[in-house]
Amino acid sequence: MAFDFNTEMKKRQDAVNRCIENFLPDEDGLQKIIIEALNYSILAGGKRIRPILIREFYAIFSRKTNPEIEPDFERIEPFMTAMEMIHTYSLVHDDLPAMDNDMLRRGKPTTHAKFGHANGVLAGDALLNYSVETVTKAFAEDDFSGEDCYEDITNVEWNKRVVKAMKLLYTRAGIFGMIGGQTVDVEKTGKPLTADELDFIYELKTCALISASILCGAVLGGAGIKDLAFLEPLGSDIGMAFQIRDDILDIEGDEKVFGKPIGSDEKNCKTTWVTLYGMEKAKEKVKAYTDDALGILDKLPENEFMKAFVKALAERNY
Amino acid sequence: MAFDFNTEMKKRQDAVNRCIENFLPDEDGLQKIIIEALNYSILAGGKRIRPILIREFYAIFSRKTNPEIEPDFERIEPFMTAMEMIHTYSLVHDDLPAMDNDMLRRGKPTTHAKFGHANGVLAGDALLNYSVETVTKAFAEDDFSGEDCYEDITNVEWNKRVVKAMKLLYTRAGIFGMIGGQTVDVEKTGKPLTADELDFIYELKTCALISASILCGAVLGGAGIKDLAFLEPLGSDIGMAFQIRDDILDIEGDEKVFGKPIGSDEKNCKTTWVTLYGMEKAKEKVKAYTDDALGILDKLPENEFMKAFVKALAERNY
Repeated sequence: MAFDFNTEMKKRQDAVNRCIENFLPDEDGLQKIIIEALNYSILAGGKRIRPILIREFYAIFSRKTNPEIEPDFERIEPFMTAMEMIHTYSLVHDDLPAMDNDMLRRGKPTTHAKFGHANGVLAGDALLNYSVETVTKAFAEDDFSGEDCYEDITNVEWNKRVVKAMKLLYTRAGIFGMIGGQTVDVEKTGKPLTADELDFIYELKTCALISASILCGAVLGGAGIKDLAFLEPLGSDIGMAFQIRDDILDIEGDEKVFGKPIGSDEKNCKTTWVTLYGMEKAKEKVKAYTDDALGILDKLPENEFMKAFVKALAERNY
Repeated sequence: MAFDFNTEMKKRQDAVNRCIENFLPDEDGLQKIIIEALNYSILAGGKRIRPILIREFYAIFSRKTNPEIEPDFERIEPFMTAMEMIHTYSLVHDDLPAMDNDMLRRGKPTTHAKFGHANGVLAGDALLNYSVETVTKAFAEDDFSGEDCYEDITNVEWNKRVVKAMKLLYTRAGIFGMIGGQTVDVEKTGKPLTADELDFIYELKTCALISASILCGAVLGGAGIKDLAFLEPLGSDIGMAFQIRDDILDIEGDEKVFGKPIGSDEKNCKTTWVTLYGMEKAKEKVKAYTDDALGILDKLPENEFMKAFVKALAERNY
């Protein structure tokens, strides 16, 4: 059967959604409302790009390291879920009145719009904290002892990968990654930006978590230092193309398909790739970054889906 | 030389402060302001109760497990620092306009009062995220391989303790611990509370992190399942005594010594132990919880400082 991207994408999104649902807490107890807010925020939809990247790069390197054994996706589920929790908490806090003050996201009320302002703050905190509770479930057995959990890898080797991936994940989510980018973004809203400053914001705010997803997946699949160095530019290529495409859609997009109000960057006086370089250059740049990404993917073992995924992101209208 | 509590307490607070400073990020880069806000928040002072508890219980169990070797406090520093970062982020977010809307803490402007509302949100996020970056430094060697890091324990055994302590820490900081307590606290402000609801809030909002500190320290020192079960009530005893003493000081305290405005609970229409049971009963209850705590400590090996610490917390005016 011929490869159909939409079918393959849907399959992966469904797998991510099932995996997330498995880790969510029961809505119970006196503090029930914060659990409802947590679950509501992460189940409100989303493209699930980051968990899918973890999954794909885990598969590529798992097959490369051990061609005889099919990738066991269950063992990376804590990372896929934690990554989406981190991405979601950043959106929940971004939407707060103190930040972008958005009442709608993906056509639904934002978390603070639905659960109140205080619960918006606490639900974001809860998601970030719960990401740690979830990711620590990736360790092979609580006590590291006894029989090895998996046939193809010792507990010690697996746990070593988990620690490495955890360090990558939270470093790129923090002040030297996503939070650093958000800080400069907030700081500079309404002020003119140089090209370097704009690149800095995009690199940290958007690319950091995308590259963390790629690298975490690769590390969990057994990638070594050289592999990681080779993969390092890929997160920037995909992230920059993604973000500039966002800037384009903010002008040319169809609100119903895009799921966000069109013209919001102009309304918020935001400098974007389009305002800085113009629409034509922006479109060229999306293509250039995408070609760079495809060039890297060409040098990796079979990854038909990843290539189609990168092309689809660059051409997306949603 | 006779035991002098104040000298011993000061020594430990100084040790905690030095340890925290060692882990703090350099104030550099375009995102400098968020790093300044992070450092400002955690260096604004505080009693450092939680890191001190980690240190003491690590020492008690480390000596019990291995009487020949002096406790190596350096290896638990990531936990001491991470714990204080989690406590600090909860205060930073608690002070936000969406929550308690406090402009002063410990006589200094709160984080959002000094760095702006958006940076108040982001600095709290940054602290929680940085706590994970810090705590993962506790693992013995990045790659778990090679020679064992410590003479008295294998890397595998040490890493096993680190994972166990991490799970404890973030479970008790999250929706089933501190965040859960804060949620109900916010939800119920200005509304009447039953005794059970008040206990629930105190258990989760205050006791959860205190017991996490005790148990993390013990686990890192080599405590087993039976030890942890024995220690479990201690966090509640110390936390409840601490919180009810806070309620008392909110009425009887001296603002300059206490460091918080007196009468704030009444102003915020908060139900406290004192409003529910009266001042006399509240004082009796602090004594009862403290006696329970001392009863547990009596059954542990030498811990003169801990006993004095528990007594001092119950009688404190600050």
